[in-house]
Amino acid sequence: MQEKAFQDFYPDDFSHCYGCGRLNEHGLQIKSVWDGEESVAFFTPDNRYMAMPGFVYGGLIASLIDCHCTGTAAAVSYKKEGRPMDSEPPFRFVTASLKVDFLAPTPLGSLLEIRGRVIEIKGKKVVVEAKVLAGKTLCATGTVVAVLLPPTMMSK
Amino acid sequence: MQEKAFQDFYPDDFSHCYGCGRLNEHGLQIKSVWDGEESVAFFTPDNRYMAMPGFVYGGLIASLIDCHCTGTAAAVSYKKEGRPMDSEPPFRFVTASLKVDFLAPTPLGSLLEIRGRVIEIKGKKVVVEAKVLAGKTLCATGTVVAVLLPPTMMSK
Repeated sequence: MQEKAFQDFYPDDFSHCYGCGRLNEHGLQIKSVWDGEESVAFFTPDNRYMAMPGFVYGGLIASLIDCHCTGTAAAVSYKKEGRPMDSEPPFRFVTASLKVDFLAPTPLGSLLEIRGRVIEIKGKKVVVEAKVLAGKTLCATGTVVAVLLPPTMMSK
Repeated sequence: MQEKAFQDFYPDDFSHCYGCGRLNEHGLQIKSVWDGEESVAFFTPDNRYMAMPGFVYGGLIASLIDCHCTGTAAAVSYKKEGRPMDSEPPFRFVTASLKVDFLAPTPLGSLLEIRGRVIEIKGKKVVVEAKVLAGKTLCATGTVVAVLLPPTMMSK
């Protein structure tokens, strides 16, 4: 089954992000879906995103974690309200803080798996933990504190 | 005075990073220099690096902080040994952890100032704190724990 990704439900105005916007032709266009209680995205970094020959630069890992987790924050908010992601009003989150621990060099050209797990939902805040794996190697872990974008900013 | 940037001293093999490699034609090619006890870099993000219209996406901020701070870690290590950055052996750092707090939306198309301050040097570890400013607005703060790349990895 070809499941529609969280990011495919973002309104057009919120689909220009370099990390996750389906309308950003230069960007990463990551796609996140549910896999049971976890969210998952896959991404294969090309040579542009090098740190040094053979390895991915840290900023890409941070970007993948950031956008996957804000997407997960949006998706879990719809889930909590029991309504589909194309219903109104849209949930859109921004990042308040991002923490990444780099555990092993991340190979270029390999399929990376980014997994997210919601660990807290409180008011306008959603905290999501993430793992980045290359095969069975855990390359990085991260935590994102996402906050709901105020409706005033959304209408701009 | 046109001061040579930290990144301009990196050996060719370490100059392919998307964030700071002078040989990565697709990358950000940030340039960091000393400004007294602090390090500083300037960068003007173009529309590619959008989060939503008018604002920079978080992954770029994380990348700027990451590369500026690992560059600062290298530069301070030469300084501590009292030798120039083109002397042997080269110091090259990788990121063990990265933390970014996003304090205000970061405008696209404006000159950003990234400032670093070394707060700890201990063994192979250098901790650098960073600020990202757009004019007088403090948009983000960050902390990077950088660790010296083992000579075995450097010779690869």
